[in-house]
Amino acid sequence: MKSKAIFYHAGCPVCVQAEQSVANALDPAKYDVEHVHLGNDKGRVSEAEAAGVKSVPALVMDGSAFHINFGAGIEALK
Amino acid sequence: MKSKAIFYHAGCPVCVQAEQSVANALDPAKYDVEHVHLGNDKGRVSEAEAAGVKSVPALVMDGSAFHINFGAGIEALK
Repeated sequence: MKSKAIFYHAGCPVCVQAEQSVANALDPAKYDVEHVHLGNDKGRVSEAEAAGVKSVPALVMDGSAFHINFGAGIEALK
Repeated sequence: MKSKAIFYHAGCPVCVQAEQSVANALDPAKYDVEHVHLGNDKGRVSEAEAAGVKSVPALVMDGSAFHINFGAGIEALK
């Protein structure tokens, strides 16, 4: 069964680079990857925070949040 | 043709978690992933720095370094 991975971003240059490399490199046989733009979809900021996301870009998978480099603090997206 | 991705780590708990989730989730059809323990293999610290690695765990792929969360600064590994 495939796991879900959520890539949270905000369209920033660091986010786009992480999306094109890391998020798009995940094995499609193992993960369904959802891409969420928190700048456009502010209603999901609280969900991201609850998953442990403190900055974007971040990848939530296997129950943990993995922050990739640093684009923007999540406080800036509220 | 497959690309090479290098996962640099130092055996720290943050590193192990990132390895088990993110590094091991990369699509094997697209990437050959090499795992380098910089604590044990200090000879490769300079190579990691040249690739832009500032902390571990980090993933170098597509010509860029992606730092995942924060385990240890690379200075501590010299």
